[in-house]
Amino acid sequence: MTPDRLPLDAGLLSPVRAGAIVEWATSDQAFLRGMLDAEAALARAQARLGIVPAWASEGVTELCDKIEIDVVELARRARGAGNPVVPLLAELRAANSDLSGYIHRGATSQDIVDTALMLMATRAREVILADLDRILAALARLADEHRRTPMAGRTLGQHAVPVTFGVKAAGWLLLVLDARSALRDVRPPAQLGGAAGTLEGLGPAELIDRFADELGLARPVLPWHARRTAVAGLGAALATTTGALGKIAADVVLLAQNEIGEVAEPVAPGRGGSSAMPHKRNPVLSILVRSAASQVPALAQILQSSLVSEHERAAGAWHAEWLPFRECLRLTGGAAETAAELCGGLEIFPERMRANLEATGELSGGLGASVDLVDRALEAYRTSR
Amino acid sequence: MTPDRLPLDAGLLSPVRAGAIVEWATSDQAFLRGMLDAEAALARAQARLGIVPAWASEGVTELCDKIEIDVVELARRARGAGNPVVPLLAELRAANSDLSGYIHRGATSQDIVDTALMLMATRAREVILADLDRILAALARLADEHRRTPMAGRTLGQHAVPVTFGVKAAGWLLLVLDARSALRDVRPPAQLGGAAGTLEGLGPAELIDRFADELGLARPVLPWHARRTAVAGLGAALATTTGALGKIAADVVLLAQNEIGEVAEPVAPGRGGSSAMPHKRNPVLSILVRSAASQVPALAQILQSSLVSEHERAAGAWHAEWLPFRECLRLTGGAAETAAELCGGLEIFPERMRANLEATGELSGGLGASVDLVDRALEAYRTSR
Amino acid sequence: MTPDRLPLDAGLLSPVRAGAIVEWATSDQAFLRGMLDAEAALARAQARLGIVPAWASEGVTELCDKIEIDVVELARRARGAGNPVVPLLAELRAANSDLSGYIHRGATSQDIVDTALMLMATRAREVILADLDRILAALARLADEHRRTPMAGRTLGQHAVPVTFGVKAAGWLLLVLDARSALRDVRPPAQLGGAAGTLEGLGPAELIDRFADELGLARPVLPWHARRTAVAGLGAALATTTGALGKIAADVVLLAQNEIGEVAEPVAPGRGGSSAMPHKRNPVLSILVRSAASQVPALAQILQSSLVSEHERAAGAWHAEWLPFRECLRLTGGAAETAAELCGGLEIFPERMRANLEATGELSGGLGASVDLVDRALEAYRTSR
Amino acid sequence: MTPDRLPLDAGLLSPVRAGAIVEWATSDQAFLRGMLDAEAALARAQARLGIVPAWASEGVTELCDKIEIDVVELARRARGAGNPVVPLLAELRAANSDLSGYIHRGATSQDIVDTALMLMATRAREVILADLDRILAALARLADEHRRTPMAGRTLGQHAVPVTFGVKAAGWLLLVLDARSALRDVRPPAQLGGAAGTLEGLGPAELIDRFADELGLARPVLPWHARRTAVAGLGAALATTTGALGKIAADVVLLAQNEIGEVAEPVAPGRGGSSAMPHKRNPVLSILVRSAASQVPALAQILQSSLVSEHERAAGAWHAEWLPFRECLRLTGGAAETAAELCGGLEIFPERMRANLEATGELSGGLGASVDLVDRALEAYRTSR
Repeated sequence: MTPDRLPLDAGLLSPVRAGAIVEWATSDQAFLRGMLDAEAALARAQARLGIVPAWASEGVTELCDKIEIDVVELARRARGAGNPVVPLLAELRAANSDLSGYIHRGATSQDIVDTALMLMATRAREVILADLDRILAALARLADEHRRTPMAGRTLGQHAVPVTFGVKAAGWLLLVLDARSALRDVRPPAQLGGAAGTLEGLGPAELIDRFADELGLARPVLPWHARRTAVAGLGAALATTTGALGKIAADVVLLAQNEIGEVAEPVAPGRGGSSAMPHKRNPVLSILVRSAASQVPALAQILQSSLVSEHERAAGAWHAEWLPFRECLRLTGGAAETAAELCGGLEIFPERMRANLEATGELSGGLGASVDLVDRALEAYRTSR
Repeated sequence: MTPDRLPLDAGLLSPVRAGAIVEWATSDQAFLRGMLDAEAALARAQARLGIVPAWASEGVTELCDKIEIDVVELARRARGAGNPVVPLLAELRAANSDLSGYIHRGATSQDIVDTALMLMATRAREVILADLDRILAALARLADEHRRTPMAGRTLGQHAVPVTFGVKAAGWLLLVLDARSALRDVRPPAQLGGAAGTLEGLGPAELIDRFADELGLARPVLPWHARRTAVAGLGAALATTTGALGKIAADVVLLAQNEIGEVAEPVAPGRGGSSAMPHKRNPVLSILVRSAASQVPALAQILQSSLVSEHERAAGAWHAEWLPFRECLRLTGGAAETAAELCGGLEIFPERMRANLEATGELSGGLGASVDLVDRALEAYRTSR
Repeated sequence: MTPDRLPLDAGLLSPVRAGAIVEWATSDQAFLRGMLDAEAALARAQARLGIVPAWASEGVTELCDKIEIDVVELARRARGAGNPVVPLLAELRAANSDLSGYIHRGATSQDIVDTALMLMATRAREVILADLDRILAALARLADEHRRTPMAGRTLGQHAVPVTFGVKAAGWLLLVLDARSALRDVRPPAQLGGAAGTLEGLGPAELIDRFADELGLARPVLPWHARRTAVAGLGAALATTTGALGKIAADVVLLAQNEIGEVAEPVAPGRGGSSAMPHKRNPVLSILVRSAASQVPALAQILQSSLVSEHERAAGAWHAEWLPFRECLRLTGGAAETAAELCGGLEIFPERMRANLEATGELSGGLGASVDLVDRALEAYRTSR
Repeated sequence: MTPDRLPLDAGLLSPVRAGAIVEWATSDQAFLRGMLDAEAALARAQARLGIVPAWASEGVTELCDKIEIDVVELARRARGAGNPVVPLLAELRAANSDLSGYIHRGATSQDIVDTALMLMATRAREVILADLDRILAALARLADEHRRTPMAGRTLGQHAVPVTFGVKAAGWLLLVLDARSALRDVRPPAQLGGAAGTLEGLGPAELIDRFADELGLARPVLPWHARRTAVAGLGAALATTTGALGKIAADVVLLAQNEIGEVAEPVAPGRGGSSAMPHKRNPVLSILVRSAASQVPALAQILQSSLVSEHERAAGAWHAEWLPFRECLRLTGGAAETAAELCGGLEIFPERMRANLEATGELSGGLGASVDLVDRALEAYRTSR
C-alpha cells in the first residue's frame, strides 16, 4: 500500500462498529455516491419543470451513475474550496463537456453536501431501526418470560426491595421504544437553495419539492442552509438511542460481575477473550455498546452548538457538523448491531438471582405491581407498532 | 445578612435570566413547593383508591400547603441522604405526628424529586412557550413586511447573491417554529414507583395514573427511575430552543456592526451602555441570548449522558441531572424573554441594506423565489397553530 | 420571604456542595466583594503611579470597603449593560460624588468582572487544594497500610489476577496528585486593559503589574479580554480534579455493593438514609462526588469553547463563561470536601477481599511488583511536596 | 474497489485535515505500527533484564518490523476481544511459533493499545508543535511590523476605541504561546502493567522504565490503566490549541467581511472558490480552522469524562477514548497546518483600517500603551524559546 493510501480509519480504533453494516452506508464512498445522486436528481427535477432538457437530465443521470472518482484525491482537493463539491464538479464537467451547463445548474455546494448527508442518514437510520426492532422483540420476550422471576432491586448501588427480571427487561423495552420513537420522528429533508438560499438561478420554489421527491427525502419548507434543526434533531435522537442501549449494557456489565453472576453475554467463538488471561470471559458486547454511548452525546452536542450559524451559511459551524454527524450514525449503528446480538442471546440465571436476594434477606419482600407493570409495558410495545 | 445566608445565586453571573419570570418558576423555593405538592398529591391519589383514609389525605394536603420550611437549612440537611426528601419528611412528620403514617406512604425520594422537577419544568415550559409565541408573531410580521426588501446574502462571511430581509426573517421564523414544536412534543411525566420501581407498598399500577392526573402531569407507562428519556428529551428541546434564538442573535450582532448597520436593537433607557465608553451602544439583548445559547447544549449533554444509569436507580448520574436540568430551563427562559424583546422591537434599515448591496455591485442579481419562499414559511406558521 | 427574594439556589439541587466552604468563596456576595476589591485596587495602583491622588485612592478604597449593595437588585440592573459593573459604578458614584472621577478611571467592565472572577477562583482554589492535601494524606496512609492486602483485580467488570488494596490506593493517590499538580499550575491573572485592551486612559503598561500585585494575582503579559486561556485552563484543571475524585468514588460504589462488600463509607448520624427503606445504607458520599464528576467536564467544555472569541471582546462567549466557571469551582469544592470525608474514614474489609478472591480461585496468583509499585507511588507523593 | 474495502474515511468529510501530514502519523496503519513497536520494545526491555533471551528479543523485533497485517481484517477481528491486540497476537504467533512464548510475555492488551496511542500522540504532537512554531514566527513578525498601524478596536461587535493591528497580532501570539506551552507540558507516557497492573508475569517494577526508554516515551510512576490523566491532559491541551487557532480564524473571518475588508487570506490557485459563484473569494483557511475548533472541545470532553473508570480497567470508558483521542490529534494537526498557511500569508490593509476608524470618528482616540504592550508580548515570545 503506497504511503498516501494508508487507511485512515478501517475501524481499528472503533471495534463497536468495525465491519458493521452501518459502515457501508456511511463510508466516504457512500457519501460520494450521495453527492452524485443529488446532482442527478437535481437535473431530473429541473427537467420535470422544463428548466433543463430531458436529454441533458438523462445524460447527467447516466454520467453520475457511471463516473469513477478517486475519493482520496477528491478529499484532498476539497481543501481548496472547503468542500468536495467544487472538485467533484470539475470532474463531472471534464468527463462530458456537452453536459457542463446542465450539471449543478444554479445549485450551491451546500445543496449537494447536505443532501448527501441526509441520504446517508436515511440509509443508516434504516439499518439502525431494523436493529432496534430486533432488540425490542428480544426484550419483549425477556419481559414476558421473566415476569415472575424475582431478583434484587438495586438502587444507588445497594440492594433495595425485590423486583423481577421481567420488570427490568420491561424498563429496557420502554427505553428502546422511546429511542425508536425519537429516531422515527426525524425525517431527513432534502436541501436545495442555491447560492444564498433564494433559488436564484435554480428554479421556482416548487423545485424544492420535486428534488426531494426524486430522492425520497422529506420536503423542507425553505432551504435550511442556516437552519440546522434537522441535523441537531437527528443527533439528539441518536444520542438517545445510544443512551438507551448504553443503559442496558451498563446493567449487563454489573449483573455479570463474578460476585453477582445473574446474567451472561451470549457465547461465541473468540469473543470476550483476553490477551493476558485466555480463560477470562469479558462482557465485550456490553463494553462495546458502552464505548459508543460515552461518545455520541458529546458528538451530538457539536451538532446542537452548530445551530448558531451566521447569515445564509455558517463560516465554520457547518463544516464542523460533517464528521460528528457521520460518527453519530456509525457509532449508533455499531451499538445497535452489537446490542441486538447481546439482547438476542442474553443468558439469565434465576437461581443466582434468588440466591443473591436471599443473602440480604430480601426475599420476603413483596413484588408490588411488577406483573401488571410488565403488562403495561408490553401493551405499550404492541400498540407502538 | 448573616454569612450563612449569602445569596449563592441572585443572577449576578447570569444577566440573561436575572429577574426573568422563569426564575420564579425555578427557584429553590419553587422546587420545594413542587416536592410538597407531590407529597400531597400522593396522599390524595392513594385516598381515591382507598389506600389512605380521606381525612388523612386532606390533612396531608393541608399540611403541605401550610408548612414553612427553611430552604437553606433543608439544602444542607440534604447532604446526609443525598437528596432533600429525607429531611423534608422529618419536618412534615414532626409537624403532625398523627399524619406520619400517611405521608410518603410507600414512596421513595426519587418519586418526589423527579415529580417536583417535572412540575418545575411544566411551569417553566409554559413561560417559555408564551415567549416563543411572541417571538413567532414578531418574526412573521417582519417576514411579511420585508418580503421585498433586498439585502446582501452572505455566506461564509462574504457577500453572495442578494436575498430579502423577508426571507431571512422567514428562516428565523421556521427555526423558532421547529423549537416550539420540539418543546411542545415533550410532555413531562409524573414519577411514582416506590423503593425499586415496583410500587411495592404504594398501591396498584393504576396509582401511577391517578397520581399523574392529580398533578396534571403525563402518565408514564412505568416508573422511570432509571429510564431518563423524559429528562434528556426536554434538555434536547431546550438546547434546540436556545440554538434557534442564538442564531437570530448571531445574525443581529453581525448586521448591527458599525460598518454594516442594517439592523439595530430596540432602544431602552440604560440598555447597551458601556462602563468605559458611555456613548457606545452595544447589542446587549443579542449578546445575552448568545450567552445562553453557548451554555445550554453542554448542559443538555449532561442529561443525555445520564441515560446510562445503573440498575433501578443510578449511583450519581441521577443526582447530576438536577442542577443542569434547572439551568437549562432558566437559561432558555431568560433567552426567550430577552429574544422576545429583541424581535419585537428590532429596527430594520432598508436603505443601508441597499447601500451595502450596491457596494459590491450585487444589486443587479435576481431575488429568485424569495417572495414565494416567504409565503411558504408564513403558511407553515399559520398551519402550525 | 417576599416573592422577589426567593432563593434561586440555596443548594437544594446540588447536595454535593450545599453548605460546603467553597460556597462562601463563590456566592454572589463574594463576587460583588471581588468587584469592589478590584475597583479599590485600581485606584491604589493608579495612585502609586501618580495617576490618581493619594487621598482619592484612599477614599475609593474606603468607599469600596463600606458600601452596602443590594445584590439582588444589582443583578437585575445588570441586564441593561449585560454586566453588573455599570450599575455598580452608578451606586459608587452616587455614594460619593467627590470621588466620582477617580473611580474606575479608564477601566472597562471586563477588567472588573474578570478580576473578580479570578479573585473568586483564587480563594476557591485554596479551599480545594487544602482538601486535596487531606485526601492525599489519607490515601497515602491507605496505600502504606494495605500494601500487602490482597484483593481481586478487576478488569472490564470481571476478576482478573489479584492486586493489593495498597496498589489500588496508590493509583488513587497518583491520580489526585496529578489533579493537584494541574490545579497548582494554574495561576489566576489580574485583568486590566481598558475599553479595547490598550490601557488608553488607564495608564502605562506597568499599571497592569501594579494592579495585579495589589490583589495578589498573577501579572498577565497583556490584557486577556479575548485570550481566555486562563479561564479554560482552570476549567480543565477542575475537570481533572473531579474526574480523579470521581474515579475513587466509582470504585467505592462498586466495592461497597452488597455482594462484594470490600469497603464501606464512614458512618455518620443521618447519612446514607433512604426515605423508602430506613435500614438501607447508601454510599452517599461517593454518589455525591460522582454527581459532580458527571457535570464538570461539560461545564469546562463551555470554557474551552469560549476561547473562540471575536475581536477585542466576545459578543456572548465571554458572558457564557461566568456561570459555568463558578459552578466548576463550586462543584469541585463540594466534591473535594466530600471526598476528604470519604477517604479519611473509608473502612476496608481484608477478610471479604480474601473471600472474594478465593471464590474465583485466584488467590494462588502472584502479586507481581505490587509492593514496589506502592513504594514508587509513595515516593512520588513525598517528593511532590 | 471491493465493497468491503470502501474507504471509511479518506478525509472527504474533514477537509481541514485531508492530506495533512498529521494524517500520516495517525492512520490506522500508523497505529498498527505503534502496536508492533510496543510488542518489540517489550521483548527488548525484558531481554535487558534477563527475562527473555537475547535471540528471542531480536527475533520478536525483526518479526514486528517485517510482518504484514491486513488492517481492515484486523479491525473486524478486534470485535471479538473488544480490542485489536488479541487478533494481532494470533497473527504474530502464527508467523513464528518458536517465538510464541516470548511475544507479549505477561502483558495485557491495554499495555499495547495505550502505548501505541501514546506513540501516535508523540509523533502527531511533533508535527503540531512544528506548525505552531511557524505560526508564532509569523505572528511575531506581524506584531512587530504593525505596532503602529491603527485600526478600530471592536468589543461586543461594535467599534470601541482604536487599537493597533500590532496589538491584535500580539494577542494572537500570546494565545498560541499559551497553547504551545500547554502542549509541550504534556509528556506521553508508556503503558505497562500486565493483566491487572501489578506487572505479575511481566517483570520487576523497573521494567516499566526500561520499556518507556526503549520507545522514547515518558516513564510513568505506576501503570495507568485506570488513571487516565495523560490522555485527558493531552486532550485539554489540544482543545486549547484549536481554541487559540480558532480565535485567530474568527477574527480573520470578521475582518475580511466585504464591508470591513481590513485583512485577506493568502491567495492560492483554486482556493476559496464557490460552486455557485465562481468569482467569490471565501476565507476558506479560516473556515477550516474554525471547523476544527468547533469539534475538539467536545471530543476532549469525552476524554475528561473517561477519567471516571472502574477498578483496574474501565468497562467501556477506555474504549470510548480511542477514536476521539485520535480525532483530537488529527483535527488539531489539520488546523495547525492550515493556520500556518493562513498566518504566514495574511494580507493586511492599513488604509482600510484607517478608513473604517475614520468612519466612526474614532481616529482621534489615543492608542494608550499599545506599543509597549507589543514589546511585552514579543519579549514573552523571545524568552519562551
